[in-house]
Amino acid sequence: MISGGAAAPTGFSANGLHCGVKLSKKKDLALILSDRPCLTTGSFTTNKIQAACVTYNKMMLKKATSRAIVVNSGNANCLTGASGMANTRRMAEVVASELGIYPQDVLVGSTGVIGVKLPIQKIIKFIPPLVKGLRKDGSFDAAQGILTTDRITKEMAVEIKAGGKSVRIGAIAKGSGMIHPTMKLSEQKSATMLCYITTDAVISLSALRSSMQKAIEKTFNLVSVDGDQSTNDMVVAMANGAAQNRTIKEGTKEHRDFAKAVCAICHKLAKLIVVDAEGGTKFCEITVKSAFSDKDAKDVLKSIMSSQLVKTALFGSDPNWGRIAASVGYSGVDISPQKLLIKIGTETVMRHGARVACNIPKLSRIAAKKNVRITVDLGDGKHQATGWTSDLSTGYVRINSAYRT
Amino acid sequence: MISGGAAAPTGFSANGLHCGVKLSKKKDLALILSDRPCLTTGSFTTNKIQAACVTYNKMMLKKATSRAIVVNSGNANCLTGASGMANTRRMAEVVASELGIYPQDVLVGSTGVIGVKLPIQKIIKFIPPLVKGLRKDGSFDAAQGILTTDRITKEMAVEIKAGGKSVRIGAIAKGSGMIHPTMKLSEQKSATMLCYITTDAVISLSALRSSMQKAIEKTFNLVSVDGDQSTNDMVVAMANGAAQNRTIKEGTKEHRDFAKAVCAICHKLAKLIVVDAEGGTKFCEITVKSAFSDKDAKDVLKSIMSSQLVKTALFGSDPNWGRIAASVGYSGVDISPQKLLIKIGTETVMRHGARVACNIPKLSRIAAKKNVRITVDLGDGKHQATGWTSDLSTGYVRINSAYRT
Repeated sequence: MISGGAAAPTGFSANGLHCGVKLSKKKDLALILSDRPCLTTGSFTTNKIQAACVTYNKMMLKKATSRAIVVNSGNANCLTGASGMANTRRMAEVVASELGIYPQDVLVGSTGVIGVKLPIQKIIKFIPPLVKGLRKDGSFDAAQGILTTDRITKEMAVEIKAGGKSVRIGAIAKGSGMIHPTMKLSEQKSATMLCYITTDAVISLSALRSSMQKAIEKTFNLVSVDGDQSTNDMVVAMANGAAQNRTIKEGTKEHRDFAKAVCAICHKLAKLIVVDAEGGTKFCEITVKSAFSDKDAKDVLKSIMSSQLVKTALFGSDPNWGRIAASVGYSGVDISPQKLLIKIGTETVMRHGARVACNIPKLSRIAAKKNVRITVDLGDGKHQATGWTSDLSTGYVRINSAYRT
Repeated sequence: MISGGAAAPTGFSANGLHCGVKLSKKKDLALILSDRPCLTTGSFTTNKIQAACVTYNKMMLKKATSRAIVVNSGNANCLTGASGMANTRRMAEVVASELGIYPQDVLVGSTGVIGVKLPIQKIIKFIPPLVKGLRKDGSFDAAQGILTTDRITKEMAVEIKAGGKSVRIGAIAKGSGMIHPTMKLSEQKSATMLCYITTDAVISLSALRSSMQKAIEKTFNLVSVDGDQSTNDMVVAMANGAAQNRTIKEGTKEHRDFAKAVCAICHKLAKLIVVDAEGGTKFCEITVKSAFSDKDAKDVLKSIMSSQLVKTALFGSDPNWGRIAASVGYSGVDISPQKLLIKIGTETVMRHGARVACNIPKLSRIAAKKNVRITVDLGDGKHQATGWTSDLSTGYVRINSAYRT
């Protein structure tokens, strides 16, 4: 684990500042630059409604390369029609011109309110100082520039040995509400969680893609704050090869180490998103075990994580396992109630489809903690999935009933 | 429209009282009796976890007849193992013995907390006065006896002409939270909404079944309070033939009139459930038009109705159509953003996948009303679905975080 976030890998710099998209004085514009071309892969929301930046990046990433990514917060630039796409393009062009690189090498991200015209002039005005301020220790500012309702700034960096050299991987992320990502490599989806991963590794495109896909499926795609999938979700990974290691190729030990490091970074960032959930007072890790298939495990997991009744019970520190069981029952998976076992923390509360006499005071103490672990055993096979969710609090309702007005 | 609720049809009587399942002094036990055998059909939750009463009724209804139904509130008797089923059976047996009828002619309903042992002795003790108090004007007491967090007592009755006679249809219902029913005739499912329909019509079983199925699919299965499908949902219809009309057979004008009356009753009761939604401050009618198929229309409808972000925006009187569009986009239906049109009340807010300049003060006034209508036009076909949902309020969170403890 090292410092420096997304600018930690050799050849990367970053910056973030306030340009006025947000009405507050908070930062709302961020930029990450590599001093040389990067192999680049992106994973995007599967929502059929997608922001202009998602459509744009998918077009640009057909060539699988980039140099920079510019992101605004405070406005999602989604459902803004032809002018929305023109504004995304303009952001990329102005950044490219200021940097002296090709416009098609600049990717774009946006997050914030949907359906409001992007105040492009404010953004353009601040692109010159944004570029001028690019620096090696600018990741924290960039990480702040992509936040919306987030309270925690999310950045990470690690260093590993691969192909005879030290290789660095860094990242910044955001996410707090409208969090129920289902992202696929180069496919259309969106909710708003953003993550930008940088690395100086020399790596083949297929090895970079498979590391990313695996990491996303095991981390970001298994968190849920509110069950609402965004129109802007994206994870972009840029590899510039500055570490000059022997190429990391698919199926090698180096690839496994690299993939493990990417997964570790995504895992920490995904959990931070849940820790930072809008109105969240609890952090809940849910494991579904002994499922017949990987899909069954994930379907049951998502059903529990999305249940308003499970989440309000969490908020109330109420070990109401009946609601957990009900949400397992309506997940669409063909479960057998007789085989179902549910644990809250270390306490088994239900076995063979019925209540188990358990230590109620102890159970209440477990439910009252900030971190709650729920385990559901379906007794049907060998597959398993773990995901993370927050509670549904009065604070969440207050934040989201007043978000726009 | 007539008075008398579920006891309005000839030959039916009802009663409700407090037996002590609820800690409050509110009524928690109800009974409906027909003085002669009834053709009976039931529709139950499709949740894989189902309460003992659901399993029991499905077994009893293989013969498609009954005489009485006894319901307790305050305890769902779900996930209570073998003793749970024994207790359901015992409720039916004691009621049958007190009435002097066969146990297999008594159906059972339960609603309340999941996973807590049913206090059967309290119930048994009060069955004699429950039976003794059966009377023609007892429907209101019965309707109160099946409520949980409901504030509104739900009963209805109508009289129509069919087969040369006056035919009456009555009903009582409950529902306020854990409302996202998906019921099928004689299949396993549950959330808690209950509805008991009585009629003195002479009707064929297939005509009774198809009237019920159609009504449920167009009403109860299209309401959602919190997206949580219960383990106890049931709609039971009893037809005792006391009106002595010519048999209502499938495909006739009488059948259409009867089906229309059943649908009207279910429609009013379903809307009352949403009016009475836990913590609800808004009543929202959502219509999805021009869908490619009936399934598409319903899938989009359910996705909008279940969105926490749409529902918190409703609570905040915020006409945030971007959230509506996002929930349409992640519904799983292959929609075309370019064809999408969204109206809030009479105002078109989005057309061809982009914002429409609209009268903002007027839009804000529409969003601030207690009744809000949302129309989504997919531009893809001729199918349509209308459903009803409430907002997600701080009150909902308070009720459900403190429901059990």
